[in-house]
Amino acid sequence: MATINDIGVAAAINIVTAFAFFIAFAIFRIQPVNDRVYFPKWYIKGLRTSSIQTGGFGSKFINLDFRSYVRFLNWMPEALKMPEPELVDHAGLDSVVYLRIYLLGLKIFFPIACVAFTAMVPVNWTNKGLDGLKHSNISYSDIDKLSLSNIPNGSPRFWVHLCMAYVITFWTCFMLKREYQNIALMRLQFLANDERRPNQFTVLVRNIPTDPHESICELVEHFFKVNHPDHYLTFQAVHDASKLSELVQTRKQMQNLLDYNLNKHTRTLSKRPVIKMGFLGCCGEEVDGIKYYTSMVESLTREIIEEKDKLRTGTKSIVPAAFVSFKSRWGAAVCAQTQQSRDPTEWLTEWAAEPRDIYYDNLALPYVDLKIRRIIVAVAYFFLTFFFMIPIAFVQSLANIEGIEKAFPFLKPLIEVKLLKSIIQGFLPGIALKIFLMFLPRILMQMSKFEGFVSTSSLERRAASRFYMFQFINVFLGSIVTGTAFQQLNKFLNQSANDIPKTIGVSIPMKATFFITYIMVDGWAGVAGEILRLKPLIIYHLKNSFLVRTEKDREEATDPGTIGFNTGEPQIQLYFLLGLVYAAVSPILLPFIIVFFGLAYVVYRHQVINVYNQKYESAGKFWPDVHRRVVTALIVSQLLLMGLLSTKQASKSTPLLLVLPVLTIGFHIHCKGRYQPAFVTYPLQEAMIKDTLERTREPDLNLKAFFRNAYAHPEFRVGENLELEMAVEKPDKLPELVATKRGSWRNTPLPSKHNSPYSP
Amino acid sequence: MATINDIGVAAAINIVTAFAFFIAFAIFRIQPVNDRVYFPKWYIKGLRTSSIQTGGFGSKFINLDFRSYVRFLNWMPEALKMPEPELVDHAGLDSVVYLRIYLLGLKIFFPIACVAFTAMVPVNWTNKGLDGLKHSNISYSDIDKLSLSNIPNGSPRFWVHLCMAYVITFWTCFMLKREYQNIALMRLQFLANDERRPNQFTVLVRNIPTDPHESICELVEHFFKVNHPDHYLTFQAVHDASKLSELVQTRKQMQNLLDYNLNKHTRTLSKRPVIKMGFLGCCGEEVDGIKYYTSMVESLTREIIEEKDKLRTGTKSIVPAAFVSFKSRWGAAVCAQTQQSRDPTEWLTEWAAEPRDIYYDNLALPYVDLKIRRIIVAVAYFFLTFFFMIPIAFVQSLANIEGIEKAFPFLKPLIEVKLLKSIIQGFLPGIALKIFLMFLPRILMQMSKFEGFVSTSSLERRAASRFYMFQFINVFLGSIVTGTAFQQLNKFLNQSANDIPKTIGVSIPMKATFFITYIMVDGWAGVAGEILRLKPLIIYHLKNSFLVRTEKDREEATDPGTIGFNTGEPQIQLYFLLGLVYAAVSPILLPFIIVFFGLAYVVYRHQVINVYNQKYESAGKFWPDVHRRVVTALIVSQLLLMGLLSTKQASKSTPLLLVLPVLTIGFHIHCKGRYQPAFVTYPLQEAMIKDTLERTREPDLNLKAFFRNAYAHPEFRVGENLELEMAVEKPDKLPELVATKRGSWRNTPLPSKHNSPYSP
Repeated sequence: MATINDIGVAAAINIVTAFAFFIAFAIFRIQPVNDRVYFPKWYIKGLRTSSIQTGGFGSKFINLDFRSYVRFLNWMPEALKMPEPELVDHAGLDSVVYLRIYLLGLKIFFPIACVAFTAMVPVNWTNKGLDGLKHSNISYSDIDKLSLSNIPNGSPRFWVHLCMAYVITFWTCFMLKREYQNIALMRLQFLANDERRPNQFTVLVRNIPTDPHESICELVEHFFKVNHPDHYLTFQAVHDASKLSELVQTRKQMQNLLDYNLNKHTRTLSKRPVIKMGFLGCCGEEVDGIKYYTSMVESLTREIIEEKDKLRTGTKSIVPAAFVSFKSRWGAAVCAQTQQSRDPTEWLTEWAAEPRDIYYDNLALPYVDLKIRRIIVAVAYFFLTFFFMIPIAFVQSLANIEGIEKAFPFLKPLIEVKLLKSIIQGFLPGIALKIFLMFLPRILMQMSKFEGFVSTSSLERRAASRFYMFQFINVFLGSIVTGTAFQQLNKFLNQSANDIPKTIGVSIPMKATFFITYIMVDGWAGVAGEILRLKPLIIYHLKNSFLVRTEKDREEATDPGTIGFNTGEPQIQLYFLLGLVYAAVSPILLPFIIVFFGLAYVVYRHQVINVYNQKYESAGKFWPDVHRRVVTALIVSQLLLMGLLSTKQASKSTPLLLVLPVLTIGFHIHCKGRYQPAFVTYPLQEAMIKDTLERTREPDLNLKAFFRNAYAHPEFRVGENLELEMAVEKPDKLPELVATKRGSWRNTPLPSKHNSPYSP
Repeated sequence: MATINDIGVAAAINIVTAFAFFIAFAIFRIQPVNDRVYFPKWYIKGLRTSSIQTGGFGSKFINLDFRSYVRFLNWMPEALKMPEPELVDHAGLDSVVYLRIYLLGLKIFFPIACVAFTAMVPVNWTNKGLDGLKHSNISYSDIDKLSLSNIPNGSPRFWVHLCMAYVITFWTCFMLKREYQNIALMRLQFLANDERRPNQFTVLVRNIPTDPHESICELVEHFFKVNHPDHYLTFQAVHDASKLSELVQTRKQMQNLLDYNLNKHTRTLSKRPVIKMGFLGCCGEEVDGIKYYTSMVESLTREIIEEKDKLRTGTKSIVPAAFVSFKSRWGAAVCAQTQQSRDPTEWLTEWAAEPRDIYYDNLALPYVDLKIRRIIVAVAYFFLTFFFMIPIAFVQSLANIEGIEKAFPFLKPLIEVKLLKSIIQGFLPGIALKIFLMFLPRILMQMSKFEGFVSTSSLERRAASRFYMFQFINVFLGSIVTGTAFQQLNKFLNQSANDIPKTIGVSIPMKATFFITYIMVDGWAGVAGEILRLKPLIIYHLKNSFLVRTEKDREEATDPGTIGFNTGEPQIQLYFLLGLVYAAVSPILLPFIIVFFGLAYVVYRHQVINVYNQKYESAGKFWPDVHRRVVTALIVSQLLLMGLLSTKQASKSTPLLLVLPVLTIGFHIHCKGRYQPAFVTYPLQEAMIKDTLERTREPDLNLKAFFRNAYAHPEFRVGENLELEMAVEKPDKLPELVATKRGSWRNTPLPSKHNSPYSP
C-alpha cells in the first residue's frame, strides 16, 4: 500500500504538472496567433473578427507586450466575474446549469469536510485498531490511521460515524433539493423569457402509418387538420438525405484537397502542384492537382444540386416522420403531450427538439425496430461492461506494488528505487484507466445512436448514463473488488453472495490511497489539461498552415468544442460517489475532491465564456439525471457503510443505518413528483401566457413563413450558399461572417456590457 | 402428510357440500318469495316488477309447480347462453372482462394440464426417488409420487421439466398477449360506442390554490376560461357535505325505526307501540313510538333541507376541487392529459370518473397530505402483512397432524379416528385461513380510502393489489415456509439468505396436498356458497318482515351486491400462482384448479346476469393489473423451479431456466408499451370522431343543462325527492320505481330479446 510519502510525491508531481499546464496556457493564450483557439466563442458570436495586435511587426503572431505575461493567472478572477444571468445570455442555460454541478459539489463537500475533520478525524486517529493487523498479511499505510479502519471492532466510537452518516445524508439531500428547486425555476424562467423559436410550435410525429391511397404528406395534413382543426398550421416532411450527406461529405474533402494544392501553389508560385492518380497518390499517371480537384468539386456541386432538386420535388425519399407546426404554443403543447391514435405505436408525437439538436438519421425508424434495437444495445452494453473488466483487473493489479514484488521477485530491486516506486504508484493505475476510458464515450455514443434517439441532447444524456454505469461498475466497484482480490482472493471466493456488500465495504478504506491518486491524475491534471486545449491547438495550426485560404475557412478550422455532457458529467458523478462513500470512512479524500471541484469550476467557467460553442440548448433538461445519480451515490454510500460497520461488529447500528436509504428513496420520490415535471412537461398556462403576449405584440405575424425550412435537413441548408463557397478563384471577395449560422440562439447583436474585461 | 385417502375424503366432503349448496340454491331460487334475492338485477333494470306466480294461494310465496324442481341444474346452461355482446349491454364491460379472467384461467391451464399429464406424470411416476427418503424423518404421501420429488437427484429426466417450463411460459405468454389485445379492443369499442355521459366531458381538478382576492369558484372559472378558451364550458364546485351525510344517515335510521313501529302497529292493530327513552331503550320514560319517530324524521328532514340550502348558497363549504366540463370530448381529453400550471402540485387534472364512481370524501385532500398519507399507509400495510403471519403460523402448524401428535401425544387416540383425522386435515387449515382473510378486505379498503383515492374503482384496484400481495406473502409463502418449519426448522435457521429461494423451492412439492385442500375449501365450496347468497337471503327476509312498507322499501332491502373486484380478483390470482408454480412440479394440482375456474366461470356468469349490480363502470380498466399479476406469478414460478432444480443437483439447467424470467420481463415490457395506453390514455382521434358525430347528429345540443348537477354530492341527489319519501302516512300512493337511479348506464328501456329464457 502507498504510504503518506507516496501520496506526497504523487501530489507534488500532479501539482507541478497542473501548474505547468496553467503557465503554458497563460503564455499561449496571449499570443495573437492562438486567439482563435482560446477565444473562439467571441469570434462565433461576431464580437471579435481579428486578433488584437499590440503594434509592430511580428505582433501579429506573438505577444510582445511583456506586462501581460506578469498577470498570467488573471484569467481566473475574470472567469468568475461574469454574473450568472449574463452567462445565460452569453452561453445558454445548459452551460450554466452544467457549471452548477461543480458548485453543487463544493456546496455539498466543503461543509461535510469541515465537520469530518473536526469531529471524525480525531476520533479515528486516537485509536490503535490497525496495530493489531501488523502481524497479518494485510498491509496498511499511515493514511489508513485517519480512516475508520483504525477503530477496533465493536468500539462505541462507531456512533460518531453513524451520526456522520446522518449528517451527510441530510446535508446532501438538503442541498440537492435546493438545487433542484433553483434549476427548475431557472428553466421555467428561461423558457418563459425565451424568444420565438420554431421548436416552441413544433411537434415531431413519428411512425406515420402507410396508406395505399394517400402519400405521407397528404396523410399528415389530413390527420392533423381533422384532429387539431383549430391549431394545426403546417408541416415539414423529413427526407432520407443519406445520399446527399455523402455527396456533401465528399465535396468537402475535395475542397480541402483543392485548398491544400492552391496554398502550395501560392507558396511555391512557379510550378503547379502535380498529383498521382494511382494507389494512395504514390504511383500512376500525373495530373495537375488544382485542375483535377477543381473539376471534382464542380462536378460534385452539380450532383449535389441535382440530388437536392430530386429530394425537393420527389416524394419517394420522404420517410414516415414529419415536423408538424401549430398556430400556437398551446396547440403544440397539447399535441406533444397527448396520444393521437388508438394504436399506441402509430402517430407518436413528442416535442420537436431545436432544429440544430435533431439527429436526422433516426427519425424514420419504425416502432418495432426501435424495440429490437433497444434489446440489442442492452445486450451489447452488458457484454461491454462486464468483459471490459479483464484488462482493468490486470492494470489494477499492477497498481499494488507489493503484489508485483510478491509475484515477480526479480523486479524488486528496480521497483525499490524510491522515486520510481512513487511514480509507479502515483501515476500508473490512474493513467492506464484514463486511456481505457478515453475511447469509451465514442462507443457509447454510437450505441445510443443505434438505439434510435432523435436528438443530440437525448443521445448525450443516454450515453452519459451508460458511461456512469460503466464507471460505477468498472472504475469504482472494479477497483475495489479486483484490487483487493490480490490480497484476499481466497477469503473472497469462499463467501456467499450475501456477504459481497460486506466485502466491498471492508475493502473501501484500503482503496482510499488509490482513489486519491486517481483524483489527482484524472481530476486535477485532466482539468488543467482541458484549459490548455493541446489537441485543438495543434489541429488549428496544422489546418491554418495547409488548408485555410479565407477568413471563413479559418473560422471553420477552429473547433471550439462543447462541454461534452456525455463524458464530463459521469466523471463528476464519480467524484460525487467517491466523496459520499469516503466522507464517513476516510475523510482524507475530501480535500482532494474539493480541490477538483473548485479548480474544475473555474476552468470550465472560463471555457464556457471563451471557448465552447454548444451545439444545442436543452434548457437544463439533464438535471433530473444529475440529481438521480447523486441520490444513487448517496444510497450506495449508505449501503457500503452498513456493510463495513457490520463487519466491524457494530451491527447494532444496522437498523439505524437501514433507515437512511429508505429516507433517501422517499426523498427522491418526493423530488421527482415535485420538480421533475418542470423538465418533462410544458404547462398549458405558460404556453397560453406566451401565446397571448405574442398575439398582443405582433397581431399580424406570419408564422408560416417563420417555419419554412426551419426543420429542413442540415445538408439542405449547407447547400444554400453553395455558389458562394465555390468562389475559390476570387480570394479577394471574402464571404462575410454569418453570425446566425453557428451562433447560439441568444446571440445579441450588440456587445454585452460586461464585454470589455474579457477580450484581452 | 396427507395421503391419497385423506385427499379423497376431503374431496368427497367438499363435493358433497358444493352439491348441497347447488341443490339448496335450485330450490330457493324458484320460490317467488326469494325472487328479489336471486334475480335483483332484473328488478333494478325495471324488466321485472313482481315475482312470477304460478297461480293459487301460497304460490305468492312458494313454488308449487313441481316440474320446475326437476330441472334444478338448468340455470347452468342458461347462464352460458347469453352472448358476450349482449352481456356487455346487460351488465357492463367490467363484469364481462372480469368473467374473462376465469376463462383465461381455463385457456391457460387446460392445455397445460393435458400436456403435463401425458408427458410429465409418467416421467415422475416411474421413479423411486422418494423411497430413499423413507428412513429420514421427512414424511411424504402417494401424491408426491406424481410430483418432481420422486425423481432422484441429478437424473437426466429433469430435462422434461425444463421443457415443460418453457412450454408453460410460452403458452401463458401467448394467451396473455391475445387476451390483452382482445380486451384492449373491447374497451376501445365500448368507449367508442358509448352513449353521451358527463364523465366524457369532465375533468376533475384538484389542489386549486387559494387566493385571498378570489373565491374558489371565480378562480376555477377564470383559470379555465383563460387557459382553455375554446373548450371550457362550465364547472361544478365540490362541497364538504359531511354534516349533510350524517344527517341523511341519521334520518334513514329513524325512518327504519318508524317503519318498524308502523309495521308492528299494523300487525297488532289495537295498541300503539311504546318505546322507552332511557339507556338502550330498556328503561326510562315511555312514549308513543310512532309519534316520536315521526317527529324525529320530520325535524331531521327540515334540518337536511336547511343544510342543503346553506351548502348551495354559501361558499364556505366549497373545497379546493372542482369538476370542470368542456364543450367537447377533445377539450376534456386535452385538459385531463396535460399539466396545467407551472407548479406541479397545483391545478392537478385527471379524468373525472363516472359520477357514481366518485369517492367524494377524498376530493379535498391537499398534495402534501396525500404524500404523508401514502407513507403512513405503506408503513401500516407493512406491519399488517408481516405481523399477521404469527396467527397464520399457529393455524398452519395445526394443519400438520403428525406435528400435533408429536406435540400433544395425549391427543393421539382422538386424532387417530380415521374420519376425524381426514376432516381435520381436509378442512381445518383452509377454513382457519378463510376466516382470517374474510375481514382483511375491509381493512385494506379502509387503508385505500385513507390513502386518498378519489374513485371507488381505483379504491378497489388498490385494495386488490394490496390483498394480492398479502395473499402472496401470507398464504403462499407463509404456508410453504411456516408449514415446513415444523419439519425442517433446524435446517432452515442455519441457512444464509441466499439459500431461501432454494428452501422454498424444495418445500413446494411437499405442500401440494395442503393447497389441494385449500383449493377445494376456498375455491369449490366458496364458489358454491357464492351462488346460494345465504347472507343476503337472510338479511332480505329479516328486512322484509320488519322494515318494508312499500315496494320501494323492498327494492332497497335487496342488496344485489357487486362482483367485488378487491376480494375476487386476488383470489383468482392466487389460483393462477398455484397453477403456474405447480404445473411443472406437481401437476396433480391442475385438475383441481381447472374445476375451480370452470365452476367459478359458470357461477359468476349466472350472478352477473341475474344478481350483481355494478356500482360503477370502468370499462375494464383493471386489466393491466390482472395481466401484471399473472406475469408476476409466472416469474415466481420460474424462480422457484430454478431453486428446486438446483437442489436436485440439476444445476446444469440453471442458465437455461434463467433465460425464462428475462424473456418474461421482456414480454411484459412489450405488452405494456403496446396495450397499456388503451387503458390509461384517451386518444384525441377517438375523441374527435365522437365529437364530430355528435355535432352532426345533434347540432343544437344544450350540454350545459346536461352537466347541471351531474357531479353533485350524492346526498344532494338523495334529498331531491325527500318529500316523496316523507309520504309515510299515505301508503296507498306508492312511489314509482326510479329505474335510472340505481341502474347501469346502459339500461335499455326495451326488454332484451334474449330476455325470456332468464326469467323463470
